[in-house]
Amino acid sequence: MIVGLRHTPIASVLLTNGDIDHVAGLLTLREKQPFELFSTAGIAEVIGGNPIFQALDPKFVTRRTVTLDAPFELVDGVTARLFPVPGKVPLYLEGDVVDTDLEGEQTVGVELSGRHGARAYYIPGCARMTEALANRLRGADAVFFDGTLWQDDEMIRMGVGAKTGKRMGHMSMSGPDGSIAAFAGLDVARRIFVHINNTNPVLNDFSAERAEAEAAGWTIARDGMEVLL
Amino acid sequence: MIVGLRHTPIASVLLTNGDIDHVAGLLTLREKQPFELFSTAGIAEVIGGNPIFQALDPKFVTRRTVTLDAPFELVDGVTARLFPVPGKVPLYLEGDVVDTDLEGEQTVGVELSGRHGARAYYIPGCARMTEALANRLRGADAVFFDGTLWQDDEMIRMGVGAKTGKRMGHMSMSGPDGSIAAFAGLDVARRIFVHINNTNPVLNDFSAERAEAEAAGWTIARDGMEVLL
Repeated sequence: MIVGLRHTPIASVLLTNGDIDHVAGLLTLREKQPFELFSTAGIAEVIGGNPIFQALDPKFVTRRTVTLDAPFELVDGVTARLFPVPGKVPLYLEGDVVDTDLEGEQTVGVELSGRHGARAYYIPGCARMTEALANRLRGADAVFFDGTLWQDDEMIRMGVGAKTGKRMGHMSMSGPDGSIAAFAGLDVARRIFVHINNTNPVLNDFSAERAEAEAAGWTIARDGMEVLL
Repeated sequence: MIVGLRHTPIASVLLTNGDIDHVAGLLTLREKQPFELFSTAGIAEVIGGNPIFQALDPKFVTRRTVTLDAPFELVDGVTARLFPVPGKVPLYLEGDVVDTDLEGEQTVGVELSGRHGARAYYIPGCARMTEALANRLRGADAVFFDGTLWQDDEMIRMGVGAKTGKRMGHMSMSGPDGSIAAFAGLDVARRIFVHINNTNPVLNDFSAERAEAEAAGWTIARDGMEVLL
């Protein structure tokens, strides 16, 4: 183990999805620094099916497969628990027919709890708010939630893509079936949008949509953000 | 095909090596923009063995396998030809015994020729200057060459790694068997170091090594550099 000049403070990496925006970053981590790589068996299989991830040298990087709904120690003092949320398989593994409302090991949310009892959730991709998910999130100290799109047909309207949010496995922020409405009665102390697509107008500090999201009690995540609970 | 907001001017990508620093960038290219992806069969096999590269949608990205020593049109008006140089297989495919002086399809150089007869070479990894390679490069208008390390044991001395340059398949810039000495009699009009490791002192504008490389007629490549021949 080499410390010093190339040391990083990364102790653990937890994958919640096998899609490129969730896993490609593994290839830019230092090759000879130890950390633990946690994922479900489903996502571990995706990673294991790509020899390029052997770059994470098993001498340094320990792969740990975790079971849905079973708590585990993510880093010292922080317990995590994975649970399925509606979603789909990674884009590069899609077949001709795509189930975008799949609940399994491919798209998961994370419950994080600390020593002092704070309870937070990280859910960067979610196709739909189910009753079970609403019940789980109720009363949480913080939820980091899928903020991909403002509106389902946003990418089509902007002329940058052919897919709706639903087709990509993402619920939108706005509208009666959107995330802002879905969280309205859930009593979540801090609501933070993450995983925001570059077409989403909330990224513009001065947009009406940004004002609307903030007025509804949401924060738009930014690079380097730290949240203390 | 979607043009406009997400258009890029990239017409072709040519891989000279299957290692992560040569191929991971493919995962950050726009998914729905057409381009041609050229490589040897050996490197195509590495890419093909990783389903994650299916992100390069075959509807848009055409994979073309090229044969060593056979010229092909890389982009309009530019002919390329690949040739083997001493090197090794990608790190993540290394077995227990590693041949770092392998000449085959895994590490290649590129000869580029334009309509007006200019002749340039791109060789980002090379373990050793062979007589055949020296003869090939003699009199070229430009050579972009492996500038990984200044000195073979540089990473060990700096405490950031356990490997020599030779072990990684790279000849160093300095010393009697280094690239600066090897090019001394080759009459190459422009000599440009690329693929420079962050331990290499030539990256420091004010180092003695930078001055030595420049005095020997070399240019240190930088981001955004353009070269007209």
